[in-house]
Amino acid sequence: MGLNYRAALNILGVILTILSVIFMLPVIVSIIYHEYTNALIFTGTAAAVFIAGLPLRRMTKSQLGDLGIREGFFVVSSTWIVISFVGALPFVISGEISGFADALFESCSGFSTTGATILTDIESMSRGMLFWRSFTHWIGGMGVLILAIAIIPMLYKGKQNLALESTGPTIEKTASTMMSSAKSLYLIYIGFTVIQTVLLMAGGMNLYDSLVHTFGSVGTGGFSTYNDSIAHFDSLYIEIVTMIFMFMCGVSFNLYYIALTKGLINIFRNPEFRLYSAFIAVAILIITLDLVFKGGYSAGESLRDSSFQVISIITTTGYATCDYNTWPSLSRIIIFMLFFCGGCASSTAGGIKVYRVQVIFRMVKRSIGIRLHPNAVINVSISNKRLQNEVVINVTSFVFLYLSVMAIGTLLISVDNFDFTTNLTAAASCLGNIGPGFNLVGPVCNYSIFSPFSKLVMSFLMICGRLELYTFLAFFTPHYWNPDRY
Amino acid sequence: MGLNYRAALNILGVILTILSVIFMLPVIVSIIYHEYTNALIFTGTAAAVFIAGLPLRRMTKSQLGDLGIREGFFVVSSTWIVISFVGALPFVISGEISGFADALFESCSGFSTTGATILTDIESMSRGMLFWRSFTHWIGGMGVLILAIAIIPMLYKGKQNLALESTGPTIEKTASTMMSSAKSLYLIYIGFTVIQTVLLMAGGMNLYDSLVHTFGSVGTGGFSTYNDSIAHFDSLYIEIVTMIFMFMCGVSFNLYYIALTKGLINIFRNPEFRLYSAFIAVAILIITLDLVFKGGYSAGESLRDSSFQVISIITTTGYATCDYNTWPSLSRIIIFMLFFCGGCASSTAGGIKVYRVQVIFRMVKRSIGIRLHPNAVINVSISNKRLQNEVVINVTSFVFLYLSVMAIGTLLISVDNFDFTTNLTAAASCLGNIGPGFNLVGPVCNYSIFSPFSKLVMSFLMICGRLELYTFLAFFTPHYWNPDRY
Repeated sequence: MGLNYRAALNILGVILTILSVIFMLPVIVSIIYHEYTNALIFTGTAAAVFIAGLPLRRMTKSQLGDLGIREGFFVVSSTWIVISFVGALPFVISGEISGFADALFESCSGFSTTGATILTDIESMSRGMLFWRSFTHWIGGMGVLILAIAIIPMLYKGKQNLALESTGPTIEKTASTMMSSAKSLYLIYIGFTVIQTVLLMAGGMNLYDSLVHTFGSVGTGGFSTYNDSIAHFDSLYIEIVTMIFMFMCGVSFNLYYIALTKGLINIFRNPEFRLYSAFIAVAILIITLDLVFKGGYSAGESLRDSSFQVISIITTTGYATCDYNTWPSLSRIIIFMLFFCGGCASSTAGGIKVYRVQVIFRMVKRSIGIRLHPNAVINVSISNKRLQNEVVINVTSFVFLYLSVMAIGTLLISVDNFDFTTNLTAAASCLGNIGPGFNLVGPVCNYSIFSPFSKLVMSFLMICGRLELYTFLAFFTPHYWNPDRY
Repeated sequence: MGLNYRAALNILGVILTILSVIFMLPVIVSIIYHEYTNALIFTGTAAAVFIAGLPLRRMTKSQLGDLGIREGFFVVSSTWIVISFVGALPFVISGEISGFADALFESCSGFSTTGATILTDIESMSRGMLFWRSFTHWIGGMGVLILAIAIIPMLYKGKQNLALESTGPTIEKTASTMMSSAKSLYLIYIGFTVIQTVLLMAGGMNLYDSLVHTFGSVGTGGFSTYNDSIAHFDSLYIEIVTMIFMFMCGVSFNLYYIALTKGLINIFRNPEFRLYSAFIAVAILIITLDLVFKGGYSAGESLRDSSFQVISIITTTGYATCDYNTWPSLSRIIIFMLFFCGGCASSTAGGIKVYRVQVIFRMVKRSIGIRLHPNAVINVSISNKRLQNEVVINVTSFVFLYLSVMAIGTLLISVDNFDFTTNLTAAASCLGNIGPGFNLVGPVCNYSIFSPFSKLVMSFLMICGRLELYTFLAFFTPHYWNPDRY
């Protein structure tokens, strides 16, 4: 069976048309700030995208629901690749980012909601470009919600095992009302955006800064318009607002729907939410103590810095209010461990996801029990619901694939000959869609030091992590292109 | 049901008696080198151990075969703990290692065949103590073979899943003739020891050095009597002999038995052996090229150094002929990746083991296939033999437990506030029974820098890794002590 490319390309055409409309927002911003060249560049890119989309839309009309799995993978992966390329165009055309590898890195980092940057002086960029750069976070965050809440479950319809592995445990509760609830979820996302923007403005930020930093928070991206990131504002109020929204966008959006329809208590009853909150609380506690006793911080300062950094990293946002690179060893290792945790499934956060970590915890606990009682039948279960072996294997396969991709990424970027910690944490940070790493890619540094080859590798890692590996990697297997030979 | 401690303690008593006999060997060596104080110390320790064993042996007579799983775990774990404590006594009494944490570290490192040392000047130690130190490798290697080939399969009798997970895939072929073949395997181990000793002497080493370095090779331990390790001899012949025996002892000893009884070809047909050889070949190739192009080595020098270091690390021996810490980034990351591989199951090597890595490869490969063909039934199989889901989950549970223990170890030793790479690689190296790590614990450095607390943590990691986690960790679970409450 060949791929139904025509139908897939038709959908890509529709998405390009939507993208050309989206470009109107940075056009407006550029005009407001009298950056007419930028306005022209964004308009031109929009026109080019629109025209490129026309012949594609002439293809067979189709709906996502009609497509098979391979076509679905094709649409999702090619969409992310195409919008990343298109997103890089304004940076290159304006000359504000020289070198296509750099522009592509920045665009991939934006759409994948990573927030890693190659810019050495962010503040020298024009308002229009910085707005576009941050807006890609917001689009990416929305895209990921659509992917997790509507597309993946649809592609795996009837295959609960696979859908469950990708989108977490709450899906079954909303499966029947999936498409109708999806709309509510985007409204929640937009609602969060509006509320945070208003709250930041109430703290003294102007509309532009508020919008840009809201995009970075709700998309769990982390691009700022200032070299010092959130530290620039030096405001406890702004840090608290940002923390709250980063935290909320690291929670499964399915939960908000359930909370709206069945009561708020359901959020607190959710095992993934509880573990996510527990991880944050424990990490903040340990780091606060470590900073006080080994780092010479005052208690208040320590609590403030550790809270912000912990929430920023676990939600894979990557905003910074201080340089955790200078923290004592223990605190740094806690932060690095959070790199592998990530937020909840079906949130805008990246990483491995709390749900999978939880399945692995239970599996390991069971494996100790079974060795002491080899004849007992002990199941892997979460909140008394038994998980099928098949689901457990799907989750562990995901995590091993994740670690393998990270290892290969580390290997490839190590040709630039930087130190081990830099290579490892750069790969882990890009794959986890976090942003900063350690040493040369720490929170006060950037990714400009790497070669174009490494930047391409890291762009690949960012998209790969954002699409939860399989959707994207399947593309690169012989199976995909020659399924009959299986 | 309470634990049958009396039977378990009886076996421990027998083991102590055997240990007291083993001490006669360092007594003889001490006398030969006129180190009469050492001879007295070893004799005294032997006597103390013998006397301590007496009352234990008065307990209910029993055989290992009579014991349940919990008693089996008790015997194995307590044996390793007790002999590590006893093994540390001569170092402390002689004053050659001051501080019990240091002596215990050295003893655990010996019996676990790790080869990590806290000695800053090895050559200043007496002949008798250095002999004892290396001899612990040989005992440890023998102990691990007994554990993997006789004890684990016996404890899990009828539970092929669990036995398979611990000892690798070849076990089923020899299961029927297990106990009778076990004897042949120890003879193979002793045979390797004799042959390597003779070959090293043929290369100009004296008997003492030959024995000591043979213990380090066949036990895949890595203690040397020289500060420069194997580099001291600067002899290609000695390096080649050492490489061959490290390589051979990283192969499943079950395979040698099969080769002896059914033909040599069976070794080369074994999928674990093939992957083990492939890993070595690929690692040597990449590092050789990297050293030539980025490290400025000549081709010959590069091949020689990379071969030795790769085999030393994958077999978890830890002998060094150069400082891989100074190699280019790519080569260092390849070496670090080998930290997680280890040798074959049922060998004297530590680490995760090639068999498990293979299961994970297949599982991940399958997981990609299943996403493209959700309705196909695709099994995890190795050389066309299907692996049960249960076995796959046991293997992945092991690896996640391994990584978790490593993470917790890294966290605990990070209180000493060394850099990230040092902490991570020290924990990985100790748990994998390798020896050297990177940065401050690189091949030309040692573990003396750590606090006594961290040394205890690392001693724990070494025994934990050596006993393949479960046997040892089960000890520390509430289940173990209160199984009825399960």
